[in-house]
Amino acid sequence: MAKEGVEITEETEHMIEKNGGKEQEKLLSAPGNKEMRAVVLTGFGGLNKLRVTKRAMPEPQEGEVKIRVKACGLNFLDLMVRQGNIDSPPKTPLVPGFECSGIVEAMGDNTKGFEIGDRVMAFVNYNAWAEVVCTPLEFVYKIPDDMTFPEAAAVPLNFVAAYMMLFEIANLREGMSVLVHSVGGAVGQAVVQLCSTIPNVTVFGTASLSKHEAIKDSVTHLFDRSADYVQEVKKISPDGVDIVLDCLCGENTGKGLGLLKPLGTYILYGSSNMVTGETKSFFSFAKSWWQVEKVNPIKLYEENKVISGFSLLNLLFKQGRGGLVKTVMQKLISLYNQKKIKPRVDSLWALEEVKEAMQRIHDRGNVGKLILDVEKSPTPLMANDSTETSEAGEEEEEHEDNNDNKERMPFIQ
Amino acid sequence: MAKEGVEITEETEHMIEKNGGKEQEKLLSAPGNKEMRAVVLTGFGGLNKLRVTKRAMPEPQEGEVKIRVKACGLNFLDLMVRQGNIDSPPKTPLVPGFECSGIVEAMGDNTKGFEIGDRVMAFVNYNAWAEVVCTPLEFVYKIPDDMTFPEAAAVPLNFVAAYMMLFEIANLREGMSVLVHSVGGAVGQAVVQLCSTIPNVTVFGTASLSKHEAIKDSVTHLFDRSADYVQEVKKISPDGVDIVLDCLCGENTGKGLGLLKPLGTYILYGSSNMVTGETKSFFSFAKSWWQVEKVNPIKLYEENKVISGFSLLNLLFKQGRGGLVKTVMQKLISLYNQKKIKPRVDSLWALEEVKEAMQRIHDRGNVGKLILDVEKSPTPLMANDSTETSEAGEEEEEHEDNNDNKERMPFIQ
Repeated sequence: MAKEGVEITEETEHMIEKNGGKEQEKLLSAPGNKEMRAVVLTGFGGLNKLRVTKRAMPEPQEGEVKIRVKACGLNFLDLMVRQGNIDSPPKTPLVPGFECSGIVEAMGDNTKGFEIGDRVMAFVNYNAWAEVVCTPLEFVYKIPDDMTFPEAAAVPLNFVAAYMMLFEIANLREGMSVLVHSVGGAVGQAVVQLCSTIPNVTVFGTASLSKHEAIKDSVTHLFDRSADYVQEVKKISPDGVDIVLDCLCGENTGKGLGLLKPLGTYILYGSSNMVTGETKSFFSFAKSWWQVEKVNPIKLYEENKVISGFSLLNLLFKQGRGGLVKTVMQKLISLYNQKKIKPRVDSLWALEEVKEAMQRIHDRGNVGKLILDVEKSPTPLMANDSTETSEAGEEEEEHEDNNDNKERMPFIQ
Repeated sequence: MAKEGVEITEETEHMIEKNGGKEQEKLLSAPGNKEMRAVVLTGFGGLNKLRVTKRAMPEPQEGEVKIRVKACGLNFLDLMVRQGNIDSPPKTPLVPGFECSGIVEAMGDNTKGFEIGDRVMAFVNYNAWAEVVCTPLEFVYKIPDDMTFPEAAAVPLNFVAAYMMLFEIANLREGMSVLVHSVGGAVGQAVVQLCSTIPNVTVFGTASLSKHEAIKDSVTHLFDRSADYVQEVKKISPDGVDIVLDCLCGENTGKGLGLLKPLGTYILYGSSNMVTGETKSFFSFAKSWWQVEKVNPIKLYEENKVISGFSLLNLLFKQGRGGLVKTVMQKLISLYNQKKIKPRVDSLWALEEVKEAMQRIHDRGNVGKLILDVEKSPTPLMANDSTETSEAGEEEEEHEDNNDNKERMPFIQ
């Protein structure tokens, strides 16, 4: 089934490449029982490598749930995937996307636990940005009646990551302090909401000045991302902080460790500072590996410090910890039902608007989560603008190089 | 006051060195209102650098409690101090010892919270191995009526370290697994007792074969210290373990990290493998710094692992976290009162037997805690044996070199 999908896609892409945008539009409007629309990454690179096309409809294998997708989450990680800037990237063409919400449409043989029509959210190991997706039972979770599909698509990667970092790794408790970078992003906003469930937690956050007005109420001390945050934090808390959540990597690792109080925990959960320009997958990854400062355990011993890394995707898809994540999901759903958390959705985009959505996350325009709304039609302006968008994608490298001050959004697993 | 103490000690030592053991015995038996017996380290080196002598009685400063000492804890760390094998060693002569139990004899000005006659245990920043000690109020804790003084002297360093590592740093919970080296030592025995307070915790331990019979009931899976513990653990738990507590350092850091399950925590709390031979303080410390494997945070990210270091002495005396330790002490006393923990005392030694006691910890002879019992008289055999002991001390370096297989006891902070 997967093989068939790839064949159809390749053929379709070939046609699109030969015939241009109009052919694509015709294909999308053609109804077909065994086909579905999906965002396809044709190769690693700029925005021009993304297109919406028809693919074979997947059918659930044993142990899988088939979901009619309503909304998908878009993360900084998806930009890294697009560029091939991840460890062991899969082969292209591929359908990106690691999380979605929707309605259960079918179950594989001998698969129990859901009814057709159940409203769910799910992790997917790629393939989420499509009208239909199949994923193993253990990665699917029922959602509360009053949780919207866009909200639900914002929960899996960001809230689970934020929860596990704060409570599974760092043991956040009353009176502690947390420093989080890119606090206006989706993980950042999940972190501040979860911190607010514990009494008397101080949140230090960095974000672009343009976001400050929108997020100032959620953060105790907010700094411009270009400020010297080490000095700013020390002015307020000379002792430092209890928890540092770092999605930037690079020199921020040393700075973060330096800011920790005794028994404090630094968690690296992304490396968005390591992403520059386009593609160069393996090379860029290897470069970031060597650029990061190594840590001497004896220094940790003398200073009573904790350093860790957190990759939710590896935890789920390489390390088989779906059971643990399920218990975290239950806690998050309980917090949602108690109205203690509520995913903050920045904006909704049609599948066909994925390039604009990616550009927005790249340009640090979002406050909270970017959602691909599968049932949304592209706004006429956007649809007419498609050629322009494509050019924007091709110009992305230069664009990035000229904007060193721009905020990098979190690399969310 | 401190200066006066040093002067008296130096003079006394001078006399002892000139006049030999008989003069020492005479001095010890001489009563004096303003003097006390103490173990003094005259310089960094072997056992021959230790002697019992008279020192000026300390008086409590403001904020200090004066304790008539009943029992003192002896730790592997004290061997490292004797050798000068610690970071920034103080000047000799000094009185070793970081923990004791006893009775409150006086309080400094404006110092409240204890009554004269209270039974207490305490941390001391050196000077514990004496008849009387003064230490700041925040390092003193009342003990339960049914806790003996030797038991109480076994609590501060070992149980607090074990508790904080398992519950403050690693977040031990039901169903988890723990690997602990030197499980027959005092920290190891504290770890197994604290693990037993949580349901369904699996403890893997390494210890010399000679100790296995004495500790086998307290450890789920016990391995000889010379066995390939990585392979042994993997045979039983191919996934690895949740927590590794390492007092050995060196190559065990990499092995420990390799054995961690995803989200597992490795804690370095000592470096006893780094101690070889005698003295050479700074050099040995610098050497151990470079020998230990550095850790790349990106590897932690990919593998979802946590690495940390824990030094209780630094936490207390350099980093001012006495308040946090006090709450841990309250929890430990509560566990003791519920009969869930009970410090395991290996043996009691007179101050004059400190060399034999150190030799026992060095020779991995102990199961549980070695205690200096201040009111105990040396057994006649030991007293007559004093010259022999001194020689043993001088031969220690060769002794160590010829015994590579010997277990190193934990370096306890």
